[in-house]
Amino acid sequence: MQEISIDGERLNRELTELAGFTQVEPSPLGTAVTRVVFTADDLRARAWLMGLAEEAGFSVRVDAVGNTFIRWEGSEPELAAVATGSHVDAIPHAGMYDGTVGVMGGLEAMRALKAAGFVPRRSIELVLLTSEEPTRFGIGCLGSRLIAGTLAPEKADGLVDLLPGAEAGSTLATVREAAGFRGSLEGVRLAVGHYDGWVELHIEQGPLLEREGLPIGIVTDIAAPAGYRFVIEGVGGHAGALLMPDRKDALCAASEVILSVEKHVLAANRASGTSNTVGTVGTCEVHPGAVNSVPSRVTLQLDIRDTDPVRREGVMQAVRTDVAEIAAARGVTIAETMVNADAPATSSEKIVAAIEVACGGARLPFKKMVSRAYHDSSFMARICPIAMIFIPCRAGVSHRPDEYASPSAIMDGTRILASTLATLASD
Amino acid sequence: MQEISIDGERLNRELTELAGFTQVEPSPLGTAVTRVVFTADDLRARAWLMGLAEEAGFSVRVDAVGNTFIRWEGSEPELAAVATGSHVDAIPHAGMYDGTVGVMGGLEAMRALKAAGFVPRRSIELVLLTSEEPTRFGIGCLGSRLIAGTLAPEKADGLVDLLPGAEAGSTLATVREAAGFRGSLEGVRLAVGHYDGWVELHIEQGPLLEREGLPIGIVTDIAAPAGYRFVIEGVGGHAGALLMPDRKDALCAASEVILSVEKHVLAANRASGTSNTVGTVGTCEVHPGAVNSVPSRVTLQLDIRDTDPVRREGVMQAVRTDVAEIAAARGVTIAETMVNADAPATSSEKIVAAIEVACGGARLPFKKMVSRAYHDSSFMARICPIAMIFIPCRAGVSHRPDEYASPSAIMDGTRILASTLATLASD
Repeated sequence: MQEISIDGERLNRELTELAGFTQVEPSPLGTAVTRVVFTADDLRARAWLMGLAEEAGFSVRVDAVGNTFIRWEGSEPELAAVATGSHVDAIPHAGMYDGTVGVMGGLEAMRALKAAGFVPRRSIELVLLTSEEPTRFGIGCLGSRLIAGTLAPEKADGLVDLLPGAEAGSTLATVREAAGFRGSLEGVRLAVGHYDGWVELHIEQGPLLEREGLPIGIVTDIAAPAGYRFVIEGVGGHAGALLMPDRKDALCAASEVILSVEKHVLAANRASGTSNTVGTVGTCEVHPGAVNSVPSRVTLQLDIRDTDPVRREGVMQAVRTDVAEIAAARGVTIAETMVNADAPATSSEKIVAAIEVACGGARLPFKKMVSRAYHDSSFMARICPIAMIFIPCRAGVSHRPDEYASPSAIMDGTRILASTLATLASD
Repeated sequence: MQEISIDGERLNRELTELAGFTQVEPSPLGTAVTRVVFTADDLRARAWLMGLAEEAGFSVRVDAVGNTFIRWEGSEPELAAVATGSHVDAIPHAGMYDGTVGVMGGLEAMRALKAAGFVPRRSIELVLLTSEEPTRFGIGCLGSRLIAGTLAPEKADGLVDLLPGAEAGSTLATVREAAGFRGSLEGVRLAVGHYDGWVELHIEQGPLLEREGLPIGIVTDIAAPAGYRFVIEGVGGHAGALLMPDRKDALCAASEVILSVEKHVLAANRASGTSNTVGTVGTCEVHPGAVNSVPSRVTLQLDIRDTDPVRREGVMQAVRTDVAEIAAARGVTIAETMVNADAPATSSEKIVAAIEVACGGARLPFKKMVSRAYHDSSFMARICPIAMIFIPCRAGVSHRPDEYASPSAIMDGTRILASTLATLASD
């Protein structure tokens, strides 16, 4: 084949177009994007992407949860395909690169390989995975969990719709049906070995590549994330009339829980001499939520991640000890629910080696690194060998409107993805 | 005139009917009511009340902010009228007695006096005051503040609509216009001396009357409330990738602020040997509010009350010292806005004496007491002599679906209100 030529102008134009499918207030910081799964903007983005795929001559399949498979048939279509992909959903007030670089970069890589006259032996698929972000259903990587079989279909269909203003009784089952994704979720699962390999292009969402001036990171491990919900029930009442000795204020108790999480995460980092443990309480819902009413119930959501799941569990145990003390001291009840607690993923040596070769060919220096953020690749690892390609993003910022990756960084990543897919599809 | 006969069956039926104007999920605890000012349910409740007033032969006037004046003309209509009243708006998930007992009890008192053949010398007015609750516009007693002239009309019209889902730019000015309350707020203010006296019937919202087995409380002082808003700005980012040393988590800082308020309020009570100081953080809004995003901004609303405004300010000073330390230690900014800081109100000796005489006549024992909850009477005190009549409510519970006052307690309070109005209107 000819040399692979990435059309960076087209790729960046398409990323900007995709960023327009958003419901968000303008931000002075950068291009703000809110694109929650199965909202009108998410559906518009999906339709637009399928149009581009068909224009490029690829076939499209959509499963019952909206995972979208854009396929370039290989010369030996009976062989397991190689796949790339990511997500296009975005949390409220996020940026325009998280996930989208992997989807649009994947499409561009396939188009560039085709234009270069490459004929894949194995078919190549670009997969848009549904709801990598947990915003709407409380659990991330919905599409890839279902593909991997780590989330039971009936449990998935029962997940409650957390979108503000959602109708009572709205669940994944009703929302996906309304969005036009019908049929049993049983059919979403793919067998182990369905793909010969998976490689995902993504912005780093951390500061290391930029700090070290490197264009490419090769991910060797993905940290193990866990999500928990704490519901704190106290006693409400009138803010003027309910006197302090009679109070069981759920928000005061919640404040102590939030600070306990921070304390034990910091202690774990001190003990390990690293920054490998991170813990975040990202939401705090107060009931009834009126300025003159004592909070009777607070719901917190905790996200905790570590490269070492044993250390992560150690932090949780320390938090649980505090939680029991807080509940006893304040006369409130605190119920913990584990939303998810996943295993870390390790990259395939073969795919990592293929990426290294691609970097060598393109004369792009790289480093091997750990992903501390959560990706669909964590779940694709259950059914096939995986690896990830990281590109630098400004100051490591992500999930904010000022998230930014330069056009040249995106081109570099896409070039490495295309070469890697060519190697894997020829194998 | 004949003996005053309160129709308790009608009064309680009407209270139940009024409770039906609500947008709320059912509660196993009791009759849950949510009736935020200028929502469809609030407007329906107002129309229904005006219908009852006209049916009873009273005239109705409505001002530009929706304060509604139901007037029974006296034999000397040029004299300053005597007035009673309260509010019908209810915070989210509240009960059916707060405010409504004073409005429906006021109407019943007027009807009972009329039925008994009483002819008032001074006119008697029942006033439904707009937005006693701060739910929608962030400040309580909107209608009575405007009547008293303690809130500037242009400032009031600019108050931002805090209703979830409110359109950007929605303010009191646009909301009241859409609800049909037009014209300048300048006309809402009433002159000092406009009324000869004001007496408000209300549930205690505290446990003392029930605990002591007393049917009537006569309020001699209303504690001074203050409201503050704290906006904490930290730095957001991805919950996996933003490592702990780089964090400036707004919710962790907010948690420390919440606990600081509690600590200093408790210290004030220990120092005074009383429970006269209460402080509540009732709302905590997290931005962006996603489970996998580090909180970048948190807004807290604080309500603090005391019978002694100097002690209340002392607590705030101690909180401010902590707030400055929290901001410096965490590298966040914390901006404080005073929403309101009002003076305590003292009842008129003449009206207190009239209530005492009414209790004597009805052979109902009473106690004189301080109101720790906030009432429209605090602001009516700026333009005329005031007092309040309290009735017991179960366990002192208020602002919750299990708020409860017995039919006989409501009848007792209404009987005392009617006698008091008769005395004042004859003066």
